[in-house]
Amino acid sequence: MFKMTSLTISKQTNLQAALLALSLDRDSPQPLHAQLTEALRALILTGRAHPGTRLPASRQLAQDLTVSRQTALTALDQLIAEGYLETRIGAGTFVARDLPHLAPPTTLAPAGPEPQGSRPLRPFHPGQPDMALFPHAAWARHLDRAWRHPDPALLALPDPLGWPPLRAAITAHLSAWRGIACGSGQVVITSGAAETFELLARAAFRPRETVLTEEPGYAPMLAALERAGLHAQPMPVDGDGAILPDDSAARGAIVTPSRHHPLGVTLPLSRRLALLDWARRKAAWVIEDDYDSEFRYSGAPLPALASLEAGRTIYVGSFSKLLSPTLRLGYVVVPPALLNAVRAPLAETGPRASLVPQPALAQFMDSGEFATHLRRMRRIYGQRQAALRAALERHLPGRLIASPDPSGMHLVCRIGPDLGGFDDTEIAARAGAAGVTLRPLSTYWTDGTGPQGLILGYAGFDAEALEAATLRLARALPAGQPGSAPVRA
Amino acid sequence: MFKMTSLTISKQTNLQAALLALSLDRDSPQPLHAQLTEALRALILTGRAHPGTRLPASRQLAQDLTVSRQTALTALDQLIAEGYLETRIGAGTFVARDLPHLAPPTTLAPAGPEPQGSRPLRPFHPGQPDMALFPHAAWARHLDRAWRHPDPALLALPDPLGWPPLRAAITAHLSAWRGIACGSGQVVITSGAAETFELLARAAFRPRETVLTEEPGYAPMLAALERAGLHAQPMPVDGDGAILPDDSAARGAIVTPSRHHPLGVTLPLSRRLALLDWARRKAAWVIEDDYDSEFRYSGAPLPALASLEAGRTIYVGSFSKLLSPTLRLGYVVVPPALLNAVRAPLAETGPRASLVPQPALAQFMDSGEFATHLRRMRRIYGQRQAALRAALERHLPGRLIASPDPSGMHLVCRIGPDLGGFDDTEIAARAGAAGVTLRPLSTYWTDGTGPQGLILGYAGFDAEALEAATLRLARALPAGQPGSAPVRA
Repeated sequence: MFKMTSLTISKQTNLQAALLALSLDRDSPQPLHAQLTEALRALILTGRAHPGTRLPASRQLAQDLTVSRQTALTALDQLIAEGYLETRIGAGTFVARDLPHLAPPTTLAPAGPEPQGSRPLRPFHPGQPDMALFPHAAWARHLDRAWRHPDPALLALPDPLGWPPLRAAITAHLSAWRGIACGSGQVVITSGAAETFELLARAAFRPRETVLTEEPGYAPMLAALERAGLHAQPMPVDGDGAILPDDSAARGAIVTPSRHHPLGVTLPLSRRLALLDWARRKAAWVIEDDYDSEFRYSGAPLPALASLEAGRTIYVGSFSKLLSPTLRLGYVVVPPALLNAVRAPLAETGPRASLVPQPALAQFMDSGEFATHLRRMRRIYGQRQAALRAALERHLPGRLIASPDPSGMHLVCRIGPDLGGFDDTEIAARAGAAGVTLRPLSTYWTDGTGPQGLILGYAGFDAEALEAATLRLARALPAGQPGSAPVRA
Repeated sequence: MFKMTSLTISKQTNLQAALLALSLDRDSPQPLHAQLTEALRALILTGRAHPGTRLPASRQLAQDLTVSRQTALTALDQLIAEGYLETRIGAGTFVARDLPHLAPPTTLAPAGPEPQGSRPLRPFHPGQPDMALFPHAAWARHLDRAWRHPDPALLALPDPLGWPPLRAAITAHLSAWRGIACGSGQVVITSGAAETFELLARAAFRPRETVLTEEPGYAPMLAALERAGLHAQPMPVDGDGAILPDDSAARGAIVTPSRHHPLGVTLPLSRRLALLDWARRKAAWVIEDDYDSEFRYSGAPLPALASLEAGRTIYVGSFSKLLSPTLRLGYVVVPPALLNAVRAPLAETGPRASLVPQPALAQFMDSGEFATHLRRMRRIYGQRQAALRAALERHLPGRLIASPDPSGMHLVCRIGPDLGGFDDTEIAARAGAAGVTLRPLSTYWTDGTGPQGLILGYAGFDAEALEAATLRLARALPAGQPGSAPVRA
């Protein structure tokens, strides 16, 4: 039989006092029962309601707090379900004795760090689409439509390679825009380029094999190779893109032929064919990273490697730059011979790519809205490139000189004679202090000692913002040498 | 000056014939200009319209195909934008000479494999929530609300550790349900347990260090350790969970204390305290994988390790089992001392977890709908466990004997005397042939020679489906020994 000692009585008095002191907000959108649950839970968690203490009966509690009995019962039921309270038949409701949550005071001490949070995009942050131009209403409608009455196949055991209708939509996009003919079963959805490279590093190669990579190149890709135990052999890049070494034991090559990252140069057809010929002779894999080739403002794009040689080419794409980095969706077109090796790790651990955006994106592509959006962005980014080019010529002549580039989302600038004495990292630091993001080109080389230059992203900023940021940059950088300014006639 | 040779004339005649043969479907929901674009693109891609061939003027084309001139112009404009066509001033529109897409015939040959597609969930597939009970309408509403007029912070450079309001909502959930007190800055969003273990294997340990793991355990976690170059030292598991070795050079331990995976046993408080004491003495990390502890049907849960010792415990959770595997969202609570090591790889490559579901999930949790859903599922899964238990006793007495278990989403059954001669893999194979998924327990040991038994998931199936599947299973398995059936009095 349960006996009440003087100690429990005093605890109970304390609890009753604390209960009477509870203030519930009748104007809050949070229902009263939820407020009461939270308040009772807090009393228990903070140790003001001790394990084993009896609570007032629900009728009494309701009366004390001027709430309905149903409200009191709902709150008590929830805390019983959560294990904070327990009932003993004929005796009432008690704070659970074997209490799961009474954390020792140390962990109830001031909580840990606050999240850093997101940061606004500063000009000239590269590689970011302008999300203000994203068709949010259409996208929200597709999300709602896909998930309000979801296709039963979305709720079954998923294909680890991704939502089949999205893979079919990507197949159609690649056929139309890049001339690539593949089956949608070859398209594998990933959470983006970083996962793609990790998957491929393990599926296409064996540890300690050598893979040719571009120098300068994409650091996360190099890190993925290293983690897989592969050796990266750098290929130098000249004005025509990567130079294939005469002789290499490499089992594959990773290239950005449409638009070298970050230099922007395009690999000419002759080098493309030589690369594919090498891959065929050596039975090596060519990984084609085609991250933003859709943004080309003049001239015809060269054929994708994957459209020239489907058997030895692995085609890597992503929606982060084309559409939105919030999706975290990328894809890779895998030759049939490699498909099982790619499937195995995805089947074992389950896919990384969320299924939530996939049916919405498939509809967005099938409806033609994706192609419309790409064409619109291509037009706008082309205008922005021209605007930045003009602003640089106006405000920084002889200081930052943009390379010609018919495509992409950023400009590569060399350091002009009027800034001749300055290092690109030094210029970037001065710009950073003035609120302008410049990426020093030299840091894209693995040893950080590449040619001097600066990367200026323009895609994410309108002409006005580009003009203002260029002006700010011009004021932050040392002025031209005396006498280099044009002399008025 | 452009000259027309007899060859181009004949090509042009061919093209004109092909154009006149185009059939556009006026009843199709696809607009006519889109159909025309597609048809023209196909003519070019299949080589029927040769590079350099001139197209009829838009007025002529419109007349030939009985479409409006605007339709013809729209289609031509799009193909010019895509690089299939080019215009020469005063000369007209031509199939692009430097054509990007003319894939060689080999890649236009029969396309690759079709996607495998999703598979229906068969009873007794374990670890899957019942998606028919998921609140789809509420979820679609939250998705729509989050993305129709998105918070500007969703469109800025993201915090690589995840959407801060979701991290705050998880902090509140862990405080209420698991008694864990942490700052939301310590909560890191991942694409699920597999990514979490990969992150932790690299952030908390150095290559070649030893980590204690449970035997039997979770295979993808072991694979992640191996890929990071770590050595896994197995801890045997008895009826009370993992047994800490007397002496170990391990730098950490990975455990499932709330509910051992897959055995379902709960680590008692004495072993929890011993484990935490070991971690403090050795400055080792304890990784607490708390994958479904919210589904507990009776009795009070024991305190989470992370609520007892916040400094050395890393708490791993996931929404795949609690809510939906389509989200691909998990999380990890990282002690402040480890936070920078976890942040670095996520900042370098960008997060894997999609941002699309994160604001919707944060709202779903903040509104209380998540807790309501969990309580509802807990009640239903508890009823389903009882239904499966009763069905097994009714149809398979003496053959499959369920262990008592107050929690979880599956039952562990030992093989009864009436099936004594059979191996668990053999029983699983027979069940599989009858359309019923059983997981043989012995295969959860790394060498596949663990104790005999079978795993039956029940969470994803209603009582009727569980009854029918048990009956089907009873018919597929060898009948009891003669004489073992109860004799009618």
